[in-house]
Amino acid sequence: MSDVKAESSVMGQIVALCKRRGFVYPASEIYGGIRGFWDYGPLGILLKNNIRDWWWRQMVLCPPIGPDGHPVDMVGLDSAIIQHPRTWEASGHVAGFNDPMVDDIGVSRYRADHMFGMFAAGADVPVATCVASSLGEAAEMIATDKKLQKLFGLRNVEVAERNEAGVTAVKASYKGQPFEGTILCLYPPAREGLFPTYPSPSTGEVGKLTDPRAFNLMLDTYPGPIRDEANKAYLRPETAQGIFLNFKNVVDTTRVKVPFGVAQVGKSFRNEVTPRNFIFRSREFEQMEMEWFCPPDDALMWYDFWKHERMKWWESLGVAKENLKFRDHDKDELSHYSKATVDIEYKYPFTAPDFGELEGIAHRGSYDLTQHQEHSKQKLDYFDQELQLRLKEQGIAPEEIKARSRYIPNVIEPASGLTRAVLVLLCEAYTVDAARPSGVYLKFKPKFAPIKAGIYPLVAKDGMPEVAEKLYLDLRNRFTCEYDPKQAIGKRYARMDEIGTPFCVTVDGDTLKDQTVTIRHRDTLQQERIGLDKVKDFLRDRVEE
Amino acid sequence: MSDVKAESSVMGQIVALCKRRGFVYPASEIYGGIRGFWDYGPLGILLKNNIRDWWWRQMVLCPPIGPDGHPVDMVGLDSAIIQHPRTWEASGHVAGFNDPMVDDIGVSRYRADHMFGMFAAGADVPVATCVASSLGEAAEMIATDKKLQKLFGLRNVEVAERNEAGVTAVKASYKGQPFEGTILCLYPPAREGLFPTYPSPSTGEVGKLTDPRAFNLMLDTYPGPIRDEANKAYLRPETAQGIFLNFKNVVDTTRVKVPFGVAQVGKSFRNEVTPRNFIFRSREFEQMEMEWFCPPDDALMWYDFWKHERMKWWESLGVAKENLKFRDHDKDELSHYSKATVDIEYKYPFTAPDFGELEGIAHRGSYDLTQHQEHSKQKLDYFDQELQLRLKEQGIAPEEIKARSRYIPNVIEPASGLTRAVLVLLCEAYTVDAARPSGVYLKFKPKFAPIKAGIYPLVAKDGMPEVAEKLYLDLRNRFTCEYDPKQAIGKRYARMDEIGTPFCVTVDGDTLKDQTVTIRHRDTLQQERIGLDKVKDFLRDRVEE
Repeated sequence: MSDVKAESSVMGQIVALCKRRGFVYPASEIYGGIRGFWDYGPLGILLKNNIRDWWWRQMVLCPPIGPDGHPVDMVGLDSAIIQHPRTWEASGHVAGFNDPMVDDIGVSRYRADHMFGMFAAGADVPVATCVASSLGEAAEMIATDKKLQKLFGLRNVEVAERNEAGVTAVKASYKGQPFEGTILCLYPPAREGLFPTYPSPSTGEVGKLTDPRAFNLMLDTYPGPIRDEANKAYLRPETAQGIFLNFKNVVDTTRVKVPFGVAQVGKSFRNEVTPRNFIFRSREFEQMEMEWFCPPDDALMWYDFWKHERMKWWESLGVAKENLKFRDHDKDELSHYSKATVDIEYKYPFTAPDFGELEGIAHRGSYDLTQHQEHSKQKLDYFDQELQLRLKEQGIAPEEIKARSRYIPNVIEPASGLTRAVLVLLCEAYTVDAARPSGVYLKFKPKFAPIKAGIYPLVAKDGMPEVAEKLYLDLRNRFTCEYDPKQAIGKRYARMDEIGTPFCVTVDGDTLKDQTVTIRHRDTLQQERIGLDKVKDFLRDRVEE
Repeated sequence: MSDVKAESSVMGQIVALCKRRGFVYPASEIYGGIRGFWDYGPLGILLKNNIRDWWWRQMVLCPPIGPDGHPVDMVGLDSAIIQHPRTWEASGHVAGFNDPMVDDIGVSRYRADHMFGMFAAGADVPVATCVASSLGEAAEMIATDKKLQKLFGLRNVEVAERNEAGVTAVKASYKGQPFEGTILCLYPPAREGLFPTYPSPSTGEVGKLTDPRAFNLMLDTYPGPIRDEANKAYLRPETAQGIFLNFKNVVDTTRVKVPFGVAQVGKSFRNEVTPRNFIFRSREFEQMEMEWFCPPDDALMWYDFWKHERMKWWESLGVAKENLKFRDHDKDELSHYSKATVDIEYKYPFTAPDFGELEGIAHRGSYDLTQHQEHSKQKLDYFDQELQLRLKEQGIAPEEIKARSRYIPNVIEPASGLTRAVLVLLCEAYTVDAARPSGVYLKFKPKFAPIKAGIYPLVAKDGMPEVAEKLYLDLRNRFTCEYDPKQAIGKRYARMDEIGTPFCVTVDGDTLKDQTVTIRHRDTLQQERIGLDKVKDFLRDRVEE
């Protein structure tokens, strides 16, 4: 099921550990799996909940202090996954949320931008085609895949380094003749009608490929008893729109005033044609999104505020600064309505030494509320009483005050993936250490470790289990602990290393005499003895900071 | 959008309060709503999270003490909403999860068991039909709905009390002639071919209704680039199957041993033809389910254990004992594989004085694992080493030991609705009190109240806001609090009553002199003064029990 090729790669090892120890399982594994879907096991759900709860605490329950020295206004929300279909017309997702797809008639369907061809110099039509997720991968396939070489009559393929123009030079024997050319992405095509002249990457047949067509990434379904277009609905591709739909409800039913934010955590669905890199890009995933509604004049200030707050948050998870960076979107990357967007990127094992997307912070202007106002015919503007008062004090003319104090708020949106955050913490924690029996340990910041402490009797006799279980029962109300009386102690320690438990507390023969226990530190492997009655404070000081 | 008819009913008032104060909004309200879907507002999500976290704590993090005096084994899980479609073939949902539906060709589709007819004595064909959710509602429609009466030529309708046979006698003038008869549910029909002879409840036309046909309650969708039957998948109608699919994964990757449980919280979808009673029956809802895997011989003991544990849990939410009861399923109500099922029922405002379903605790035998073993061809049995040892000690013959210590576990399933629990706590808390400015207050047990305390300066000047905000910042890390310096204090108190905040803490002129604050108790309306430095302990003692 793993879509990570080399099991020997770091990423392959993380995926294997996740399965072996119960962090993440392929969904429906007993039925051969279902592509792009994952189940979170006993440890994965604890880790995921820890991140979710921390985001919720930092955003909703204890939001940051704003530029005026007071906590900013923030409320939570939990909107339905299925909303009225017009939501997605207004948001632009029905018309614009597409991948270009090519049909290989009767065989399959491919993402056009994942199709590559091997061209002789100046030729319009490639002699061979393949499907890969990057130019590098395509070059490797053409160089090494015997089946593909046979299909297209290739032999002795030699691929040169990627040249300056960003293409890959290739030499080969083609149908017995020497061949020189380049490997290129087939998308976008120079003109319509080209794809039908290309050979199929699966069968080699010409005339079976269609021109690329837009393929919507939203999954649809039909609530209600009648299955017709009027009842077609979509599984949300983002949680954000549920917030925009409720902007007026929140303003009308709570005491928040612009500027304020609405935050929510929940599942979203995107019918990715090529789900990949484990839980990095899956078809069902979980998001943590916040929409910050503010006066248009202050939007850039708030964009900057949230940009830095969000980076601090990622650092608070224990992610090393050098593995995080900002990447400002170029002008031509921006949506037409966005005045600025920045990604927080992480150095994933599968992107290193490059960085990959982690969170986007977008200045969306007034686009979303304006769209929903137009499509719903409901007034979604905001009357800013405080601004009115301020303008009055400044002696502004009444007409101008009236015009300026009623507006459609601008929106700053920090949008991140909860399931992607799980991946980042797993990657960040994964530490090889050949000196340990487990060969590896997960160096989670204690606050986010699925299990905070293993509470163990050294052996399952002589009154030790009773003492250890009593300690466990006392601790578990506050800390997620494991009590396990049976395995050899070395095995228990090794298992805790592999799942990232920061502390093991062992009750031994001395405990019964002097009421002390051994604390084993995951990171240093050092052991110290402390009083049985000090364990709670010890953990509190180290896992709650 | 409300499907609760009388806005003056208790239920209507609860629905209105939920909207007015930000507990629950109709989903996609600005687009006219989408039937069967609800959004949880700023207070609703806090209430829902409190219940979710308490279930998770009591089930997964601190599971109950078992009959042997030790905590039972329990782990959490979070499986995908979309699983391999064969999951639902194995579980029986594809074949058996249906409602009987009648098409009114070109007009609409109705649930057959919600169709009623008015028959003359002995007649095969009714003179009038209607769609209602109960016989009583049908009788009321026929008695009062002028449009319906006109459609069928009825006048002066008089409906008698429901008689002994469970039908409703009716007298009327029908097409100018005196008419006597009864109102009956049209489903199940006595034979095929009857429905096409009935008049349509919408148009009165005969010959437009089809015989009832099975209508599957699962919502379907098509993940992957190709939309064909092979890629058809379902939105899960229950979280339970995701647990069964991972039974082997959990056994193989954790240290649990049978008996143990796997618990999860998550969204499920059912395409209810008639979503109703606010969030009681919606198309998207949230479940809290646990599957307890145990040796077949101990299943009835565990059934009894969980039955009582679950009742204790509902009581721990602050639900009054007299509003909860068990209802054992009759033999003929049981699924063929279930040896016993009991519902925990609650006295909802819309069922009172009767009770309605809240949680089901089912003894499912080995049905689910056996089905998945057959459909997946994966071994899902369990080797019970401890049982083997015990049998050996009893001197049982080796053959018998071998046979008995490998088995497919039985399953006890306590399955409840998180969103239904939100409804129960709202109904339970709703308390009319004409003496208060708000006219009503929500008497949540403090632990589950969305906001634990309102922290208020009496007036927004004279140094009071500074003291109150400092207190708020100190408290909010531990308790969900509101700080609001601006409204008149009476209005703030009234608002807190209406949303069920158990305590208000007010900073006034005296606070600046003697460092004391006023605590206002929601339930008694009494006020007391305590030291500013005692507020944290005061709240801890009252909201964390």
